[in-house]
Amino acid sequence: MELHLCTWQEVETYLTKSDAIIIPIGSTEQHGPTGLIGTDAICAEKIALGVGEKTDAIVAPTMNVGMALHHTAFPGSISLRPTTLIVYVQDYLTSLAKAGFRKFFFINGHGGNIATLKAAFSQTYDHLDSLNLPNHEQVKCKIANWFMCREVYQLAKTLYGNQEGSHATPSEVAVTQFAYPSAIKTAPLNPDVSTGHPIYGAKNFRNCYPDGRMGSNPALATPEHGQQFYELAVEELSESYGEFIQ
Amino acid sequence: MELHLCTWQEVETYLTKSDAIIIPIGSTEQHGPTGLIGTDAICAEKIALGVGEKTDAIVAPTMNVGMALHHTAFPGSISLRPTTLIVYVQDYLTSLAKAGFRKFFFINGHGGNIATLKAAFSQTYDHLDSLNLPNHEQVKCKIANWFMCREVYQLAKTLYGNQEGSHATPSEVAVTQFAYPSAIKTAPLNPDVSTGHPIYGAKNFRNCYPDGRMGSNPALATPEHGQQFYELAVEELSESYGEFIQ
Amino acid sequence: MELHLCTWQEVETYLTKSDAIIIPIGSTEQHGPTGLIGTDAICAEKIALGVGEKTDAIVAPTMNVGMALHHTAFPGSISLRPTTLIVYVQDYLTSLAKAGFRKFFFINGHGGNIATLKAAFSQTYDHLDSLNLPNHEQVKCKIANWFMCREVYQLAKTLYGNQEGSHATPSEVAVTQFAYPSAIKTAPLNPDVSTGHPIYGAKNFRNCYPDGRMGSNPALATPEHGQQFYELAVEELSESYGEFIQ
Amino acid sequence: MELHLCTWQEVETYLTKSDAIIIPIGSTEQHGPTGLIGTDAICAEKIALGVGEKTDAIVAPTMNVGMALHHTAFPGSISLRPTTLIVYVQDYLTSLAKAGFRKFFFINGHGGNIATLKAAFSQTYDHLDSLNLPNHEQVKCKIANWFMCREVYQLAKTLYGNQEGSHATPSEVAVTQFAYPSAIKTAPLNPDVSTGHPIYGAKNFRNCYPDGRMGSNPALATPEHGQQFYELAVEELSESYGEFIQ
Amino acid sequence: MELHLCTWQEVETYLTKSDAIIIPIGSTEQHGPTGLIGTDAICAEKIALGVGEKTDAIVAPTMNVGMALHHTAFPGSISLRPTTLIVYVQDYLTSLAKAGFRKFFFINGHGGNIATLKAAFSQTYDHLDSLNLPNHEQVKCKIANWFMCREVYQLAKTLYGNQEGSHATPSEVAVTQFAYPSAIKTAPLNPDVSTGHPIYGAKNFRNCYPDGRMGSNPALATPEHGQQFYELAVEELSESYGEFIQ
Amino acid sequence: MELHLCTWQEVETYLTKSDAIIIPIGSTEQHGPTGLIGTDAICAEKIALGVGEKTDAIVAPTMNVGMALHHTAFPGSISLRPTTLIVYVQDYLTSLAKAGFRKFFFINGHGGNIATLKAAFSQTYDHLDSLNLPNHEQVKCKIANWFMCREVYQLAKTLYGNQEGSHATPSEVAVTQFAYPSAIKTAPLNPDVSTGHPIYGAKNFRNCYPDGRMGSNPALATPEHGQQFYELAVEELSESYGEFIQ
Repeated sequence: MELHLCTWQEVETYLTKSDAIIIPIGSTEQHGPTGLIGTDAICAEKIALGVGEKTDAIVAPTMNVGMALHHTAFPGSISLRPTTLIVYVQDYLTSLAKAGFRKFFFINGHGGNIATLKAAFSQTYDHLDSLNLPNHEQVKCKIANWFMCREVYQLAKTLYGNQEGSHATPSEVAVTQFAYPSAIKTAPLNPDVSTGHPIYGAKNFRNCYPDGRMGSNPALATPEHGQQFYELAVEELSESYGEFIQ
Repeated sequence: MELHLCTWQEVETYLTKSDAIIIPIGSTEQHGPTGLIGTDAICAEKIALGVGEKTDAIVAPTMNVGMALHHTAFPGSISLRPTTLIVYVQDYLTSLAKAGFRKFFFINGHGGNIATLKAAFSQTYDHLDSLNLPNHEQVKCKIANWFMCREVYQLAKTLYGNQEGSHATPSEVAVTQFAYPSAIKTAPLNPDVSTGHPIYGAKNFRNCYPDGRMGSNPALATPEHGQQFYELAVEELSESYGEFIQ
Repeated sequence: MELHLCTWQEVETYLTKSDAIIIPIGSTEQHGPTGLIGTDAICAEKIALGVGEKTDAIVAPTMNVGMALHHTAFPGSISLRPTTLIVYVQDYLTSLAKAGFRKFFFINGHGGNIATLKAAFSQTYDHLDSLNLPNHEQVKCKIANWFMCREVYQLAKTLYGNQEGSHATPSEVAVTQFAYPSAIKTAPLNPDVSTGHPIYGAKNFRNCYPDGRMGSNPALATPEHGQQFYELAVEELSESYGEFIQ
Repeated sequence: MELHLCTWQEVETYLTKSDAIIIPIGSTEQHGPTGLIGTDAICAEKIALGVGEKTDAIVAPTMNVGMALHHTAFPGSISLRPTTLIVYVQDYLTSLAKAGFRKFFFINGHGGNIATLKAAFSQTYDHLDSLNLPNHEQVKCKIANWFMCREVYQLAKTLYGNQEGSHATPSEVAVTQFAYPSAIKTAPLNPDVSTGHPIYGAKNFRNCYPDGRMGSNPALATPEHGQQFYELAVEELSESYGEFIQ
Repeated sequence: MELHLCTWQEVETYLTKSDAIIIPIGSTEQHGPTGLIGTDAICAEKIALGVGEKTDAIVAPTMNVGMALHHTAFPGSISLRPTTLIVYVQDYLTSLAKAGFRKFFFINGHGGNIATLKAAFSQTYDHLDSLNLPNHEQVKCKIANWFMCREVYQLAKTLYGNQEGSHATPSEVAVTQFAYPSAIKTAPLNPDVSTGHPIYGAKNFRNCYPDGRMGSNPALATPEHGQQFYELAVEELSESYGEFIQ
Repeated sequence: MELHLCTWQEVETYLTKSDAIIIPIGSTEQHGPTGLIGTDAICAEKIALGVGEKTDAIVAPTMNVGMALHHTAFPGSISLRPTTLIVYVQDYLTSLAKAGFRKFFFINGHGGNIATLKAAFSQTYDHLDSLNLPNHEQVKCKIANWFMCREVYQLAKTLYGNQEGSHATPSEVAVTQFAYPSAIKTAPLNPDVSTGHPIYGAKNFRNCYPDGRMGSNPALATPEHGQQFYELAVEELSESYGEFIQ
C-alpha cells in the first residue's frame, strides 16, 4: 500500500486502524564502476514495499536523496547537507504527524544517512513538542537498516566473505539486479580494491577510493542473490515493524 | 536514461556530450476522493522519463515532495515549507553543478511548486556565484509544467470543458490511470463541486474545498485519455528541452 | 493614511473597523540608463498611497528592497536572497497579525518579487498556524501588481506598442516622472535594445541586457502618461482591495 | 543624492569618486499616544538626506523596519527578529559591496537596533571574507545614532530636562513635526509617566509602560525644536561621515 | 553551587526557592603576547563562581566561546558567527526556561559579546512567547560585564592609568594570574602599542593591532591585583544580582 | 596544554609542529539521583587533559552543552537542537581551520552527541571546501568516545556486570568522583531501575525512566574506580590520537 497510490480518504480510513507508516530513505550516489547511482534508494524502496505488503502498512514516498556529501567528487552523486536533510525530515514528519501519524519506521539503504537521520528525529520530537500537537509525546521514529539485518549480514558473509566490503557491496548490487534486471552493468574492476580508510570530505574520499568501491567486489552479485537478500530483509524488517508499532 | 540506473562512469561519459539534465518534481498531496496522493509526482516522473527517452537526456530522481502546505489539512498530504524546498533544491543542484551539469530542466506536476521553485533558482544562481564554480554563469534552470503544454490544455478543454477544474483535474487523474491502471479509484463525487476561491492557508483551503477538488470532475478521466495527454506532453516538452539546451 | 504617520492608538481604533492593511513592495535595482534605481518602490508606494486614500485603508511602510538578484551585476542594485525575503515577510506579517490584522494586500512594483512573495505567504500561513494565533485561519495575503492592471496594460500598449518591453518600461518610468518630476533623467539609448532572453543569474543577465533594459524604450515616457497610469492603477486596485476585504 | 533617484550609470560614476554610502535605519513601532509609529525611520531618513546633501554622498533606501520586538504588544508595531535583521543587513551590504562600495555609514534612529546592527556588521565582515571579494578587508561599517550627537543631547537637556525621557522623547517627536508638520498629533498624556524599568519581552514592556512612553513628555515638542535638532544632527553627522570616509 | 556539580533533584529543590541562575560567558581569543586565549572565559567563570557562592545561586556551565570574529586572524581564536551565538543562547535558555528558570544573569568577560548577546535576549523573549510557556512574560535576562563594575574600573585607572587600554588589559590579565598563577606568561612587549582604531573585520583588526593588544600594557598585571579585581567584582555583581532577582 | 592557557604566539609555534587539536565534548543533563548534571563534560574534559598531557597536544575549550533534548524533561538539563550544534561545531572548526589546524580529535562523553557530531563533521568538510581554504581536503575529524574504549568497557563489565546500565552509569559517575571528590552525592536509589526502552522525545523519556537512570546502579561507583577508568581511557585514547595524527 503506497501512500502515493492512495486517496486521502483511504489514508483517513487507515488512520482509524493504525498510526504507523513506513518511510524508505536511500541516497543518490556513486556505487563504483558497476553499481547504480540509485542503489540505496532502490534497495530501500523495494524492501519497504515488501514490508508494507506483508504488514498491511502504508509506505510513504521514498526519500531518494540523502546525506552523501563524501561521494560528491564523483559525477552523478547528489547530496543534501545535514542541516537541509534535518529540516526536510522535520517538515515531512510534521505534515504526517498533524494528520495523526505517530510512528515512523524508516527503512534505510545508506549508512551515511544514519547520523543525520537520528539527529533529525531528535529535532523533530522537539519541534512537535513546541507545536503543542495533541499526544505528540507518542511520536516515535526508528531507523531500520536493511543491510544490517542479521540474516542479510550472514548471507553476505557466506556468499562473499570479505569481498562484501562496505560500499558498492555485492549484496546491495544484487538487490538492484533483482529489482532492475535490465540495468545490470559490467565494467572492469581492479582486483586491488581500496579498503580501510576512514571517511572524511569528498576530495579525500575520492583520493582514497579512486573507483568508488570500498573493499568490495560487486562482480559477485547475481539477481538470484538479490532475491534472497530481499526476502530475508523483508522477513526480518516485517517482524521489526510489528514490534515497533505495538 | 535514469540517473538512478546509471553508474558514475556513465554519467562522466554523458557529461562529455551534454551538460543538461531533466528533473521531475511533483508533490505528495490530496487529489480529491478519487485522485492519488502521488498524482503530481507520478505525472511528472512518467512524462520526464518519456522526454528523457526521446531526447537521450538523463533524468534525475524525482522530487516527490514539494510545496503543498495548503493541502496539509487533508491526511496523507506532505509538504515542505518554502525555505526548506529552496535549500533542498540548492543542495541538489549544487551537487550536480560541481560535477559539471549546467542546464537543469524541471518537469513539474504541481502548480503550487512554481513560486518556490523559481525562488530556489534565483537563490541557487547566487549561491553558485558565491562558490566561484567555473563557468557558473552558464547555469540555467527552467520549469516546464506539463499541464500547461498548449496541446495538453487544448485536449483537456475539448474532453472536459470547464469540468477540468484546477485541482484533481480529470487530465492529471487520466495520466495516473495510464501510468498505474491497477490503481484506478472510484468514489461518489458531489456534482456540486467548489470552485473559485483563492488559496490561503491549509484550514481555509479545506473549508473552501471540503473534498479536495477544485472545480473538477475527475470521473471523466480514462487511461486512454491519460495516454493521449502523456504523448502530447512528451512531444511538446521534448521540443522545449531541445530549445533549452541549445 | 500611512501607518508611519499614525499613533498606536489610531491603529487600535482602526482595528475596530478593519483588519486589512495595504503593503507596498518594490525593489532597488537598475532600470536602464534613464530609469531610477528606486522605480519599483516609488511606483508601488505612490499607487499604494493613492489606494489607501481612496479606500480609507492604512498603508504600511514600503518594502523597498526585494528579490532582484539577477540585477546585481549593475551597480546600485540591492537584493535580498529569497530565503531572506521570506523570513522578512514572515516577521513583518507576524507582528501585524499579533495585533489583529488579518488581510494583507500587497501592491507590488516588481515582477521579480512575485515568486518569492507567494512562497512567503505560504510560509507565513503555516507559521501563524504553528503559533496558535486566534482566528489565524482568517489570514489572507494577496499580491496586486499595479503594472498588470487591465487598464494600465491597455494604455501602455496604446501609447508604446511593443516599445513597452518588460523592464525599465516607459510606463513605470512615466509613473516615477509623475512622482518625482525633478528626477527625470536622460541618456543616449541604443535603439537596438535587447529582448527575449530568459532570466538566469546576474552575470548572464548583464551579458544579455548590457544597458539593463529589456526590450523597452523609456524615452517615450512623460510625466503626463505617469499620471494616467497612476490614476488607472489606483482606480483598479481600489476596487480589487474592496473585493479582497469583503 | 538618493540612491533611489539615481540611475545605475550615475552610481557607476559615483563609485569612481567614492566607495562610501549612507544608510538610514529606523523602526516601525509605537511612540506613545502622540508619537508617530514611523518616528525612528522618519528622523533617520530626514537627517540622512541632510547629511547626504551636505557631503555629496549617496543615501541608500531607508531600512524602515528594525528590531523592535519589545514594542510589539502595541498595535502597529512591526519588528524583525534579530536573526532576520542580520541576514537582511548582510544581503543588503553584500549587494553593495559586490558593486564596489566599501564604507557603510548607518544613520540610526532607534536605540533598539544598535545591538543587532553591530552583530550584523560582524557577520557581514566574515561573510564578505568568505566570498573572497577583492579588498573586502577594506569594508567598514559604522552606526551613527543621531539622537546621541553631542549637541542634540545638550539641546534636549536644555529644552526638556528630564522630561526628555528615553522613548517617545520630545526631541524625536519634534523632528517628526518638522518633517511632517501636517501629522502633528495631540492626545491626553498622563503626567505620571512610567520610567526606569529595564526592557525585557513585549508583554512585560507594555505592563511597565502602559501608554508606550518611557519617562518622556512629548507634549513639549515643537516643529521649531525639530528643525534645530535636525540642523545640529546634520552638522555633526556630516563631520562624522567626513572622518569615517578618510 | 555549580549546575555541573548538582544532581537534577538538587536543581528541582533549588527551583522551589529561586528561579534565577547565573551564566558566565567569555570568549576564546587572542589576548596579546602574554594574555591567555581563555582570558575572558576564565575571568567570567571565576567571578561567577564567587558571586554564586556569595548569593547562594546556581552557576550554569560557562559559554566559553563567544563572538570574536574580529580576533580570528590570530591563531587560537575561536568564534561563533552572531546568528550561531543567538540560536545557541536561545536553545540554552529555552531548556532552562522549560524547567522553570525565569531570571538569567549573565556575567560577561568580553566586550565583543555584548551586542550579540542583547540581540539573543530579544530573540529568546520572542521565542518563549511563541512556545506559550506559562508565565514566559516573567523571563528576564541581564548582562553584567565584570570589567565595567564601577570599583573595578576605578582600581584599573588608579593602578594602570591609560596603560589599561581596551583589550588584553592588565586588569583582565591580573584576574587570570590570580586564577591560574601557574600560567603566568611573559614576552617582550612593544612599548609603542597601537590604540584608537575602530574595530572592523579580522584582517583589518590584525593590521591595526599587530600583536593583538589594544593600547594596553599587560606587563603591569600581578596576581595580587587580580585578587583585588576579583573581590571588587564579586562584591558589586552580587549586589547587582540581588537587585535583579527581586 | 590547554588552549585557554596558551597565548596566541604559543599556538603559532605549536602549529609549526602539529596541525592537530583535541576537543572535549560533553553535555549538561540529568544523570539520575546521584549523578552530576555535568558528568559528560567533566569526564570528557578530565580525560582530554590527560591525553593532551601525554601526547603534547593542545586541548581546546570543552563543548559543555551538547545534544540532550531527550533529557530536557528533567530540571537542570540544557540542550542544543541538532541544527544548532551543527552550526556551532562548524563555526568552531572553521576558526581553527583558518588558523591552520587540520585534524580535530573529539573526546566525547555523551552517546547522544554522536549522531549530530558526525553530521556536523560532514557539514564542516563541505563548508571548508566552499571556502576554498588551502589544503582543506586534509581536514579530518574523529570522535573518540572514552566510554567505548575497550579496556574501559571491560573494567566496567568486571566491576559492575549488568548494573553498568547505559545512562548514569557507575563508570562515568566514578570518573566524576575521581575528578570532584568533594561533589560525591548520595540518594536513595530504587533497585528496580528501568531499562530497555528506546529513546524518543523528552516527555516519553521521563515516563520510561522516572529517575533518569537507564538500567544502572551508580551506587557502585568509587573514586578509585574512577581513577582506573581515567587511566585506561587516557592510555587508549592517547594511542588512538597518535594513530589519528599520522
